[in-house]
Amino acid sequence: MAVQVIRYTHGGKPGWGVVHAGRIAPLSRDYASTADFVREGMAEAHALGPDAAQLPLAQVTLLSPVTDDRQFICQGINYASHVRESGMDPDKIGFNTIFTKAPSCLTSAYADVVRPAHVQLLDYEVELGLVMRRPLTKATVVGPDQLHEWLAGVTIVNDLSARDVQLPQAQFYKGKSYRGFGPTGPCLLLLSAQEWRLWPQLRMRLQVNGQLRQDAYCGEMLFKPHQTLTELSALHDLQPGDLIATGTPAGCAARAPNRLAMWVARHLLSEQGKWRMFIRNGLRNAAYLRPGDTVTASIRTDDGALDLGEQRNRIVAP
Amino acid sequence: MAVQVIRYTHGGKPGWGVVHAGRIAPLSRDYASTADFVREGMAEAHALGPDAAQLPLAQVTLLSPVTDDRQFICQGINYASHVRESGMDPDKIGFNTIFTKAPSCLTSAYADVVRPAHVQLLDYEVELGLVMRRPLTKATVVGPDQLHEWLAGVTIVNDLSARDVQLPQAQFYKGKSYRGFGPTGPCLLLLSAQEWRLWPQLRMRLQVNGQLRQDAYCGEMLFKPHQTLTELSALHDLQPGDLIATGTPAGCAARAPNRLAMWVARHLLSEQGKWRMFIRNGLRNAAYLRPGDTVTASIRTDDGALDLGEQRNRIVAP
Repeated sequence: MAVQVIRYTHGGKPGWGVVHAGRIAPLSRDYASTADFVREGMAEAHALGPDAAQLPLAQVTLLSPVTDDRQFICQGINYASHVRESGMDPDKIGFNTIFTKAPSCLTSAYADVVRPAHVQLLDYEVELGLVMRRPLTKATVVGPDQLHEWLAGVTIVNDLSARDVQLPQAQFYKGKSYRGFGPTGPCLLLLSAQEWRLWPQLRMRLQVNGQLRQDAYCGEMLFKPHQTLTELSALHDLQPGDLIATGTPAGCAARAPNRLAMWVARHLLSEQGKWRMFIRNGLRNAAYLRPGDTVTASIRTDDGALDLGEQRNRIVAP
Repeated sequence: MAVQVIRYTHGGKPGWGVVHAGRIAPLSRDYASTADFVREGMAEAHALGPDAAQLPLAQVTLLSPVTDDRQFICQGINYASHVRESGMDPDKIGFNTIFTKAPSCLTSAYADVVRPAHVQLLDYEVELGLVMRRPLTKATVVGPDQLHEWLAGVTIVNDLSARDVQLPQAQFYKGKSYRGFGPTGPCLLLLSAQEWRLWPQLRMRLQVNGQLRQDAYCGEMLFKPHQTLTELSALHDLQPGDLIATGTPAGCAARAPNRLAMWVARHLLSEQGKWRMFIRNGLRNAAYLRPGDTVTASIRTDDGALDLGEQRNRIVAP
């Protein structure tokens, strides 16, 4: 059975616990990091039944279940629908785009998120997050049925992005790394070997002020988790507690301009002129996030067998 | 006085030490990470004089003085000469390009570096590496005379890059993150407040098989260390042991094609066609690194007052 693990503070003290019907069964130890929990706390989490769940969820302050001391790796343009809205052809995506976010952008699923003063085009990206369980320190072929050997569980990630920094500066890192730009959780959902097979049926939904913006199944992913683990293992080390965000489907605020505007941008405008046009158009696009907006995001199977919970983050001014 | 700190193994045991004239004065504790050394070992390192240096350098196996448990942040196109050879106009660089390398690419200044089987265009980039001393966890204006407050010291970084992965895939992370692609050291040079003022006089040189390829002063940097610390502090957290590689000057193997080829690539070729041309041209460029090549890199002031030592890495086949 999938286990919903949360990290929180209660009465000023940090803790980890398992959620059963709105109540928390606290773990006996306060792990300093997700890596420590994954290495030493998973067995206890699996063993803590509903009887041990005494602490009401409403009494704690939720934290991100992924701590900021490990790698935060992201896949880009990994859903055909998002590739299309970004102005590219999914059939011509010949590689798995990988970049990183600064781990200090991690924040709780209920935190307020500051839109920095100079950011005008703040966008959302709901994504399935994978949390590493075991070290992967050499080239390893990970089969689609071996996810449970390497991964501890899944979580919701909102890969918030300042498009007016990310896209004109070409390297995605800065525009995606501001403090608060990584709401993660509410829970880390631990999956059994059997449950890992259900990941394609997980359905991601993101709403802004109650309006549905993104709605897609994780199974539409172009580069699947076992392929990404296999590829990354040949490149660099992965360690327990590392987070891999697997990309977002269609529905972001940012859209590629129409064909005429694309032709003009490519052939007639300078690099700077192109981005000035992009930002000017973006400022007329009401889909970008503004202070006062509330973003909710959920990931679950339609039958509710797997449920990663729901995020609810308010965008606020500095 | 600047202090050369190294990390090594001796008789199978790890250690840290201070180098005096080819001999090592071992520190009393074996710090598990650069962060731990920076927090707890710097005072002892400053106090260990030549009298304590008994262990010959030749008897130890050198390790990277930066451990792979923290962030490895990089600046791109940060020298006008490198901007020009990359086909861009330094006067139009309006921002500080930031990306990351996977920390597990860190390796010793004397290690063999494997050129992965599928990489054909392996390039070198000598860079000044800055190692964080204190946490920077909120927006902070760092003045040019305050580097010693935030930084522990400097080290040599070779930002090895698979151009045939990095450039066609747009995001730099993958092409720069292969295991071994970050020779760092030989030492971490601890600087006094006074000595930090000399960083612009540090001269980087890189040779391949004895042939000089890169030779520039760090002072030519476009975005200076205090500016980069100020900007990053407003974006995300920096912690002790983080490494910031500050970009490379002219002389890399990769060069922008001539104006005609650039025009053809921009107006007549598809994205894929453009990169096929880039790789085809690259294969005729003898400056790229091949198994058997030896890369040496040094950074020091011309008067020898500050000396970061010399790297010597051999490129080998898988």
